[in-house]
Amino acid sequence: MDMERLQKQIRFILEIDREKEIYRQTHLNNHGRRENDAEHAWHMAVCAYLLREYANEEIDIGKVMIMCLIHDVVEIDAGDTYAYDSEGLKSQKEREEKAADRIFGLLPEDQRDELRALFEEFEAYETAESKFAHAMDNFQPFLLNDSNGGGDWREHQVTISQVLGRQTKTGLGSEELCSYTLAKLEEHVQAGNIIEDRKKAD
Amino acid sequence: MDMERLQKQIRFILEIDREKEIYRQTHLNNHGRRENDAEHAWHMAVCAYLLREYANEEIDIGKVMIMCLIHDVVEIDAGDTYAYDSEGLKSQKEREEKAADRIFGLLPEDQRDELRALFEEFEAYETAESKFAHAMDNFQPFLLNDSNGGGDWREHQVTISQVLGRQTKTGLGSEELCSYTLAKLEEHVQAGNIIEDRKKAD
Repeated sequence: MDMERLQKQIRFILEIDREKEIYRQTHLNNHGRRENDAEHAWHMAVCAYLLREYANEEIDIGKVMIMCLIHDVVEIDAGDTYAYDSEGLKSQKEREEKAADRIFGLLPEDQRDELRALFEEFEAYETAESKFAHAMDNFQPFLLNDSNGGGDWREHQVTISQVLGRQTKTGLGSEELCSYTLAKLEEHVQAGNIIEDRKKAD
Repeated sequence: MDMERLQKQIRFILEIDREKEIYRQTHLNNHGRRENDAEHAWHMAVCAYLLREYANEEIDIGKVMIMCLIHDVVEIDAGDTYAYDSEGLKSQKEREEKAADRIFGLLPEDQRDELRALFEEFEAYETAESKFAHAMDNFQPFLLNDSNGGGDWREHQVTISQVLGRQTKTGLGSEELCSYTLAKLEEHVQAGNIIEDRKKAD
């Protein structure tokens, strides 16, 4: 047994424990406390497995699951950037690449390269697996927020243009789940949970 | 789109959100707060992926990951039973089967049967995938506890016979990770973190 290799793997495993202390803006169902990155990644991966029948393209579900599980590792250093924080989004890419260098760099070289490639594939939003994983990254917090009466949108005074900018991309991974989402969003606009800022046609 | 089917899937997805509030005895790295079931399942699934090279037998890693992700769903109703709580362990099986009926029963029938079968396969400890998933169920909290100087063992005044009773079963999934664990456990006995209760040979 290559003890140096195992030690590196354990070092990484203990490092990512810190994801359990990175809190997101989304609240748990029944509007409890905020959700952390580890919980979000777990929930996303289970969603991916259960909802894989709605993927637009054929997907390798094992690959989607590991992509979901590790996609937020970089937030240990870079922090969580709220989907509608336009200032934070500007520097997000640079902060996250630096974090990826350090954190995946704890692993043995072959696994460093393997996980980094999975992370970059997720970020690039091009393959069937990354599109479906992104759909889950949108759909899981959408479900929680919807179940909580849209409290997170109200708290941040989010507009429908902002939400649509993100949620329509769910359609790249799953047209069916995107349709479901868009219909629900209109209900939240009607209920005043999301601000209407679209120009009305004359 | 079959809306009744999707509604059932969403009902299950929101129900398992409650795993984020089921706290275990294990503490996070650096002895922070206790870990919850969702965090544990996430960490276990990542461990499975990263450490799959140490499995005794060939495994389907996608199957191991989903098994890890859902193995504690029953604790939403049945609660967490500490590995060394002999009273709780007596009624654990019955409580967990009842919980499995209710919680997996929220899903559409085909998925109810699929996830129930995965859960039962995990519990039966017979297939290569379930043995490796169990190894991760032991190894992940062992790593946290080891990194915390054995605090959880000290707090519960656990003896080496109790720990070995559980941890030697890691060897069914991975002899290599079991050897690593056993060597570390002896260090914790020496340091007084685990109580020595084995009879000395004359």
